[in-house]
Amino acid sequence: MKSYRKELVINTQTRRAYVNITNEVEKALYESGIKEGILLCNAMHITASVFINDNESGLHQDFENWLEKLAPEKPYSQYNHNGFEDNADAHLKRSVMGREVVVAVTNGKLDFGPWEEIFYGEFDGKRNKRILIKIIGE
Amino acid sequence: MKSYRKELVINTQTRRAYVNITNEVEKALYESGIKEGILLCNAMHITASVFINDNESGLHQDFENWLEKLAPEKPYSQYNHNGFEDNADAHLKRSVMGREVVVAVTNGKLDFGPWEEIFYGEFDGKRNKRILIKIIGE
Amino acid sequence: MKSYRKELVINTQTRRAYVNITNEVEKALYESGIKEGILLCNAMHITASVFINDNESGLHQDFENWLEKLAPEKPYSQYNHNGFEDNADAHLKRSVMGREVVVAVTNGKLDFGPWEEIFYGEFDGKRNKRILIKIIGE
Repeated sequence: MKSYRKELVINTQTRRAYVNITNEVEKALYESGIKEGILLCNAMHITASVFINDNESGLHQDFENWLEKLAPEKPYSQYNHNGFEDNADAHLKRSVMGREVVVAVTNGKLDFGPWEEIFYGEFDGKRNKRILIKIIGE
Repeated sequence: MKSYRKELVINTQTRRAYVNITNEVEKALYESGIKEGILLCNAMHITASVFINDNESGLHQDFENWLEKLAPEKPYSQYNHNGFEDNADAHLKRSVMGREVVVAVTNGKLDFGPWEEIFYGEFDGKRNKRILIKIIGE
Repeated sequence: MKSYRKELVINTQTRRAYVNITNEVEKALYESGIKEGILLCNAMHITASVFINDNESGLHQDFENWLEKLAPEKPYSQYNHNGFEDNADAHLKRSVMGREVVVAVTNGKLDFGPWEEIFYGEFDGKRNKRILIKIIGE
């Protein structure tokens, strides 16, 4: 069994953002030399997500509006977690969107359906955040 | 390390549906000959889910009602993604229910608790949709 | 390829609770002797979650308040699943928080970011519930 590990670093200019990381994940898979196996990609921070969905900016705006309705950022005082922090909403939003994806690796490629792309969802940005890619197989 | 890959195809008669795929996943595991490892099962489309929950029709009706409350299908105009599309709600519903499950394989079986069963959750059906099963182990 | 399997048993004194299981998962990883691979940790019951987030009690209270808003326990009669059961809300809450986590194993350790810890989220407790840990690698 082979394994490969890589970190990506992202620093978004806004508190919330959706960043397409599909190319970086494909690059890591190519570097690994692994042809058959499983790829894990996860946010290493608890106010961010890695998820698979559509590369369509209107949908990303819908995510933003919808998550703000489900778990509004403000007023900050509505959350027990806030005080020293102001990011309780980011922890909740990340819970909806998920921490990680697991992707099949087949013939050296991400084994994706026609519209699947990998996104980093940032909910408390403007600072360096890390994403982990771990691949096992052979 | 052995690996095995199989696709299922589902075409639901309604826009939304919950389909028990546990038997098909068990069949794929049997075909693989893998006794110890990990099984990944994911929707290959971004308006559908694979998830584990109870095989109880009342609960599935509760999922339907609840997801319609969290991310209503209509009016279509409430979503930026819609226009050429009418399925923004399906992308959101799938985000709540999840894209994939990862299941332990022990002694050649899905290593499940007493009530765990695998479902395909369709949120934009009436056409062929694919599900991927990937198993690694030995 | 090596594999290792372990069950944890938890019995919470309240219907809902968040239990930090990071130490138990680390102990299982140490017992496995696996240095490189993937660790799966999942609830074996369909009214509970395993998830990764912050070890902060204010945030856990926020989870409780937020999940009760998204999928209230009462009135029980609002859910088709209830009747013999009273736990439909627990199935919905678990859907938001997720069934499982998959964690990279690197150099014999959980490959975590600075604040990641693993929690068991109980939504229908006061009885024995099981958690599965499965590790594959070498």
